[in-house]
Amino acid sequence: MKILTRAVLPKGFLAHALSCGIKRSGGLDLALLYSVVPAQVAALFTTNRIQAAPVKLCRSYLKKRTPVRAVVINSGNANCFTGAAGMRDALSVSRSTAALLGVPEEEAWIASTGIIGRRLPEGKIHGALPQLIKGLNPRGIGLAKKAIMTTDSLVKESTVRCRLGSRTVTVSGIAKGAGMIAPRMATMLAFVMTDAAISRAFLARALREAVEDSFNSITVDGCMSTNDTVMVIANGEAGNRRIFVPSRDYASFRDALRYVCLTLAKLMVKDGEGASKFITIRVRGARSRAEARKVGLAVANSSLFKCAMYGEDPNFGRVIAAAGACGVPIAERAISVVLGNLKRKDISVEVRLSRGSAEGTVYTSDLTPEYVKINADYS
Amino acid sequence: MKILTRAVLPKGFLAHALSCGIKRSGGLDLALLYSVVPAQVAALFTTNRIQAAPVKLCRSYLKKRTPVRAVVINSGNANCFTGAAGMRDALSVSRSTAALLGVPEEEAWIASTGIIGRRLPEGKIHGALPQLIKGLNPRGIGLAKKAIMTTDSLVKESTVRCRLGSRTVTVSGIAKGAGMIAPRMATMLAFVMTDAAISRAFLARALREAVEDSFNSITVDGCMSTNDTVMVIANGEAGNRRIFVPSRDYASFRDALRYVCLTLAKLMVKDGEGASKFITIRVRGARSRAEARKVGLAVANSSLFKCAMYGEDPNFGRVIAAAGACGVPIAERAISVVLGNLKRKDISVEVRLSRGSAEGTVYTSDLTPEYVKINADYS
Repeated sequence: MKILTRAVLPKGFLAHALSCGIKRSGGLDLALLYSVVPAQVAALFTTNRIQAAPVKLCRSYLKKRTPVRAVVINSGNANCFTGAAGMRDALSVSRSTAALLGVPEEEAWIASTGIIGRRLPEGKIHGALPQLIKGLNPRGIGLAKKAIMTTDSLVKESTVRCRLGSRTVTVSGIAKGAGMIAPRMATMLAFVMTDAAISRAFLARALREAVEDSFNSITVDGCMSTNDTVMVIANGEAGNRRIFVPSRDYASFRDALRYVCLTLAKLMVKDGEGASKFITIRVRGARSRAEARKVGLAVANSSLFKCAMYGEDPNFGRVIAAAGACGVPIAERAISVVLGNLKRKDISVEVRLSRGSAEGTVYTSDLTPEYVKINADYS
Repeated sequence: MKILTRAVLPKGFLAHALSCGIKRSGGLDLALLYSVVPAQVAALFTTNRIQAAPVKLCRSYLKKRTPVRAVVINSGNANCFTGAAGMRDALSVSRSTAALLGVPEEEAWIASTGIIGRRLPEGKIHGALPQLIKGLNPRGIGLAKKAIMTTDSLVKESTVRCRLGSRTVTVSGIAKGAGMIAPRMATMLAFVMTDAAISRAFLARALREAVEDSFNSITVDGCMSTNDTVMVIANGEAGNRRIFVPSRDYASFRDALRYVCLTLAKLMVKDGEGASKFITIRVRGARSRAEARKVGLAVANSSLFKCAMYGEDPNFGRVIAAAGACGVPIAERAISVVLGNLKRKDISVEVRLSRGSAEGTVYTSDLTPEYVKINADYS
């Protein structure tokens, strides 16, 4: 597995981005990812009961089990809590894109990120679509990765190359978000593209497995977004033998996808609003991985724990109190906590439960006065 | 119902407090509440899996269904996560107190609040007990209410007088805590005394009903303490006809108890570490009161919502996102949010669900840079 630091479009993908005027700053706010051939897709969405219009639309497209050709992403507006009008806006962007590309509408997906509760300025998007499509190119990911950012201060990208049989497969992802709900605005989005040939079912399975250990194991503020979307698009252009059984090739691909997802997830935590520490919480001796993660997330979401980490205060009582409250029947005699060097920027915390042999790791940031300031004043 | 602002010992109660050297500051840190006759008791404790030694001991005493005569409360040390030694320390304080007062040990209850994970300096308590008992007096609540404070900046007290038949009954409570886990230290404690004559079963029922709408409806930081204890002690000295059926007298007493509990709970929120706002979240149109409270607490515990309140930012999307994530199947079309005037110190937020006719109210504070600073540096 070869690791590249920059996002690189896999074979058969094109991208472009531009500014269409949604962001007042005049910054890049509209991106297009495109596969030259129909591609398989797998996607996971927020489990919040309130879901943005683009999430609802993509869910309905996913159910149709058709391939995907394009994803239009806008930043600056989440198109969430916008009612029936918001759904019409989302559908209209999808339809226009599909018409211009000459593909069925369910192959033109959309995603939005930004403020909740305001109508999407779809006129600006329609006006910009022809130029956006005209500009599609094999190096367009460089602009696209910036166009999906809102309050992000770091670009989030990751690329891995692996061998499947005699072929080299590329898995490359970009993401945005500075929390489960990215503070000031809403949403975290991640788009992974690959030229691997893989069945729809195994692509979905690989995504589920990769997400458990990455996006589902991070938290900045415990807040769940209305727009969270992670998708992986596989167009098969690498020419590898198609993966459709649980083979060694499947494992290699899954590991590559997991690496990309974990890298993007960690970058979100590193970019957590106001964060001064990157905290790795490893829970050992749990009955199951799910239990380990539950304990880890309870600690990671404790404001008191996060404040102590910010203050470099070895207050292990806060770890114990948070773990004890999470619903796992932890015995006082059987729990122990090891805090790493708190003076460092990267802090490790180990929680041992003596309940079993499973373990899990979660990642979080500290809670700082800067976080409060950033989030005190937005809309 | 007559409302008094200060704590006043009901008939047949005595109290006293002093400094025994647990707090480094030399402040008051040991209090004793005493009933001149055996009294009924009802108590509720933290549901955290990790529980302090005094909580475990009082739970075991409660199960014995014996009366109670005294409560010894120390601040500065939570006697939690202290293992078998901590249990021995707790039992030893209870036994010494009981021996000096000439009552069975299970009638001498104890409570502790302060830092987690350090041995209780029980020698200091033993040394001070004779003087503490000698000083018991009918106005001793004035010192006791201060001796139970840790990081509290406000004294928390409430007294109500009501008529039961021809008699006047007093319900008076004191409490400490600046959050579900009081920031820097741990725990919230509340002690309510009354001279009402009431059966053990109806005292327990009244406490459960009162706590639902008060201590169980507040949150500062969503953190659950290891020492939380609320107890009500009723010694019958008012001479009212004993309450042992669901009568009008029961309702009057329950309402008086609820008022005292709610006043103490609101004082905890007002005293929330670093708080600049007192926020009342009323949820209407829920299927049940429990559902309403669940939605209210989800909003109240959202860091993003709390930051927006601090910044006086009318970002209703954060209310929607928090409510949508709490597990109640809320429909986007059916939820609406009304934010009161954010410039005021007291802010009201109303969430309407259109799911039913039940409602519930929760109380919380905002999240401020000051909260982070206070909690960044303690142990």
